[in-house]
Amino acid sequence: MSQSDSRPIGLFDSGVGGLSVLNATRLALPGENLIYLGDTARVPYGTKSSLSITRYAEQALKALLRYDIKTLVVACNTAAAAALDALQASYPELHIIGVIDPGARAAVNVTRTGKIGVIATESTVNNQAYQKAILSLMPDANVKSAGCSLFVALAEEGWHEGELVEAIVKRSLSGLFDHYRDSDDYPDTLVLGCTHFPALKTAISRVVGDSVSLVDSAVTTAAVVKKQLTDRGMLNPGSDGYVRFLVTDGPERFARVAPRFYSETIEAEQVELIDIQHFV
Amino acid sequence: MSQSDSRPIGLFDSGVGGLSVLNATRLALPGENLIYLGDTARVPYGTKSSLSITRYAEQALKALLRYDIKTLVVACNTAAAAALDALQASYPELHIIGVIDPGARAAVNVTRTGKIGVIATESTVNNQAYQKAILSLMPDANVKSAGCSLFVALAEEGWHEGELVEAIVKRSLSGLFDHYRDSDDYPDTLVLGCTHFPALKTAISRVVGDSVSLVDSAVTTAAVVKKQLTDRGMLNPGSDGYVRFLVTDGPERFARVAPRFYSETIEAEQVELIDIQHFV
Repeated sequence: MSQSDSRPIGLFDSGVGGLSVLNATRLALPGENLIYLGDTARVPYGTKSSLSITRYAEQALKALLRYDIKTLVVACNTAAAAALDALQASYPELHIIGVIDPGARAAVNVTRTGKIGVIATESTVNNQAYQKAILSLMPDANVKSAGCSLFVALAEEGWHEGELVEAIVKRSLSGLFDHYRDSDDYPDTLVLGCTHFPALKTAISRVVGDSVSLVDSAVTTAAVVKKQLTDRGMLNPGSDGYVRFLVTDGPERFARVAPRFYSETIEAEQVELIDIQHFV
Repeated sequence: MSQSDSRPIGLFDSGVGGLSVLNATRLALPGENLIYLGDTARVPYGTKSSLSITRYAEQALKALLRYDIKTLVVACNTAAAAALDALQASYPELHIIGVIDPGARAAVNVTRTGKIGVIATESTVNNQAYQKAILSLMPDANVKSAGCSLFVALAEEGWHEGELVEAIVKRSLSGLFDHYRDSDDYPDTLVLGCTHFPALKTAISRVVGDSVSLVDSAVTTAAVVKKQLTDRGMLNPGSDGYVRFLVTDGPERFARVAPRFYSETIEAEQVELIDIQHFV
């Protein structure tokens, strides 16, 4: 007989992008209570140093611990790439899941040729988190990455598809997809290594072609959360979990931009403003 | 006989964009000692709330006061728009200059028709800082603004000109320049209300046409700094002023992106990392 654990799951992102992970988690686990923290006061993380990102992630974790979370989901690729090891070292008793490993695993499962492209923020590309995670699962994989920090702004501005967006995507991906589509060097899998990027999925797919599988780590991360909570007997069954939103800046903007990443309506009044910058 | 004051001028920006103001100040006042602070740990400000921007600006000012600055230049449109009044109220004894008023004055001087367009970040557009500043000088001006937060990412990524950049600019400015060029409603002046935007000057000019005067507040702000220091007898004559760089994150990235906005080479070793987030 399985146990039940009604403590909430904490999800942390630099801003709104991680709402795609929240969305997938809610669909996979409708009984879970979820607390989402977006560090909108310092967003984006993608162009910041690992040092700062780690510090911000630790402050976010401290804020979420006040809600007695049973699991932390680092729902931001940049934060997971830079800070997951440090968070796990600081809080060995807490169950922490990042978006990188599930994404890498999904890419390895889906590729036929082992030629895998990764697009992410500047920071995630620089610390080669996906590269390492994929190679640890598939040592002979051929992984190439490209920084696409611009896509974050596009996604937030609502520029998601159309000719102009495709032209921007094409230029940004030219380093990864500069071979002919029938060439052996053309990747057959592309990891969307930033939670903002699925918003541009249609445009990206049109540019790289249908033959390339796009890996969106939101869905795969939610599946991992479900599996791990199940294995540990820590699920909260049912279908009436609550969702609570915390941000470090601008509840109004958060509520306004959220629909680009989240399928339920969020009112600004539902979004609580908290300060985490003073945590040491 | 004029006095001399060798105390440094402090310049504050959210990141690298304000280097265009530093550049102009250095050219106008080669004898002045200059301390530039970029709050790269929390950049960009353009999508953040006035509350947070004001807090960050106050922390930056506190950091710069330790260097015994004689004047503060708020070299960031977003920070000047959101926080200048609060800074002046908190530090009435300090001489503080923002980039908004010089930009508004330049626009009013240059327009023939009174039809003025302003492009800026989301935050600057929302608090209507340029609109108010221009109307206070020219009450019958017709001012329209558009948020172009995307241009910040373009400028930092080095996407400054070419067909694709012009297509992005055209779409972003369509609300301001949707009339025929010979229409009476076509602006004759466009304020580049964000220190990042002059990097896209060529593309912007090609889109709106040569008949539109582009106002870059970097140069006009430097002229105001020079005039006010002269009037107050606070100049430091000569031509061998030092420049010192402080950032709150990523000295390497700062040094790497700086050439897009600053004409002298900056080595990462010259850039000092400081923490201002703990200031209350």
